[in-house]
Amino acid sequence: MGAATKIAILGAGLIGGSLLRAVKAKGLGGAISVYDRDGSVAPDGVAVTASPSEAARGADLVFLCVPIDHMRAVAEAALPGLSPSAVVTDVGSVKGSVCAELDPLLQNRARFVGGHPMAGKEKGGFDASCDDLFAGATVILTPTAFTDAAALAAVYEFWEKLGAKIEQMSPAEHDRRVARISHLPHLAAAALASVPDDDAMKVAGPGFRDATRIAGGPADLWTGILSANRAETARALDDLLARLQEARAALEPGNERQLHDFLDRANQMRNKLG
Amino acid sequence: MGAATKIAILGAGLIGGSLLRAVKAKGLGGAISVYDRDGSVAPDGVAVTASPSEAARGADLVFLCVPIDHMRAVAEAALPGLSPSAVVTDVGSVKGSVCAELDPLLQNRARFVGGHPMAGKEKGGFDASCDDLFAGATVILTPTAFTDAAALAAVYEFWEKLGAKIEQMSPAEHDRRVARISHLPHLAAAALASVPDDDAMKVAGPGFRDATRIAGGPADLWTGILSANRAETARALDDLLARLQEARAALEPGNERQLHDFLDRANQMRNKLG
Repeated sequence: MGAATKIAILGAGLIGGSLLRAVKAKGLGGAISVYDRDGSVAPDGVAVTASPSEAARGADLVFLCVPIDHMRAVAEAALPGLSPSAVVTDVGSVKGSVCAELDPLLQNRARFVGGHPMAGKEKGGFDASCDDLFAGATVILTPTAFTDAAALAAVYEFWEKLGAKIEQMSPAEHDRRVARISHLPHLAAAALASVPDDDAMKVAGPGFRDATRIAGGPADLWTGILSANRAETARALDDLLARLQEARAALEPGNERQLHDFLDRANQMRNKLG
Repeated sequence: MGAATKIAILGAGLIGGSLLRAVKAKGLGGAISVYDRDGSVAPDGVAVTASPSEAARGADLVFLCVPIDHMRAVAEAALPGLSPSAVVTDVGSVKGSVCAELDPLLQNRARFVGGHPMAGKEKGGFDASCDDLFAGATVILTPTAFTDAAALAAVYEFWEKLGAKIEQMSPAEHDRRVARISHLPHLAAAALASVPDDDAMKVAGPGFRDATRIAGGPADLWTGILSANRAETARALDDLLARLQEARAALEPGNERQLHDFLDRANQMRNKLG
């Protein structure tokens, strides 16, 4: 990616906004254009348009940064502005459905590479964005039979310049893993946040705060994500339910050894994270 | 509590050690003595003994800071050193069982007040202790029919001096609330930490880390806590299982509205924490 690269960011929420700030902070790209639905974001010295095709026009590298259930519509709207040599990538949290929609849609119209930067905050929107959101984050790229090798390399190189660690896997493997370490935990945190009544909530400490923090994410966004990855999330949830039934049995009098083993195994799993 | 107050800390792990450091940092108490099982901790200028009764001898204020399942044995061992006017309190995470054991044991032998500072870390032990663990923390005191009003006031005043916010409630109400905001979340985090395989764990980000952080706590300690509060924890776990079954149904195709409502309610609950 040279200094003359033109970058288009379609969707200026938390992720798109952070991408914009990071690109500017690192001095990457020759020109930057931004599409935003309501055009209300006004980052310093960057043109914002409410037209995806206008933002995408002449861009070498296009980032689709809209919620998962708007991805297809925004990609379609961008089509008239795309050059066949443009590299298009996305930041969606589900890759099976996105790649299945965008691979055929963009075939011969641009060069698409599925991607997922695993970074976020509970608060969404441009105002919450920051220029170091991707430093040290894991970015998963999910090439398919449609993927152009040079386009993959360009996206890889881009994220690397922002300080991310890149992993490559199939969209299906991405969705299986991410169901377990992100989509299921979101559902579990939401369920957990619903158990205490107001009196109990009053004495909640840092442990409860941390365990339920991700449940603060926007319900609209997460409905889209969980629906797009429903099969893997349901499978992971069934695994969690089985583990919790084990825990339920271990709480019965006389099962202290079982309870200890359950906690000890979890301890060892958790400590693998360092 | 005057400058001449003698304080005894029985058990110098994370909580007892932090209490010791806080008392020294604030210059509270005229003299401090410490009991520790293996006598291996050596805080600057404080006498450490492996005898609970020796540590308790002549103390005005005695803190029982041992794991829940050692509480009774250490209190019994301290008896020969206790004066009937001594105020004895504890830091156990379950109050029903502790008060039921210690109220009759200490009646006429000392003045017992059940307590629970809601503060902690995943790493236990004296080395993890620090002098500001209780600043801003909630401390729950659980007086019963056995409790002396002046003793309750002394313990209240002590924790207030360490910067804690005090709540008072019955042992049963404590156990009900804490099951929901601490004991259940611990079990849920443990179950959640057991779902991903090693490949999935490799891409885990900050969300998963936070959601499972408390599962890193010592299995021995938590087996004792969960066993001592098994009835309320089981009730809270049944509530969680019911919520997760709701989530499971909401993941079925066509139930997006239900899924959205589930996430939205959780969002509102979580955001009450600020």
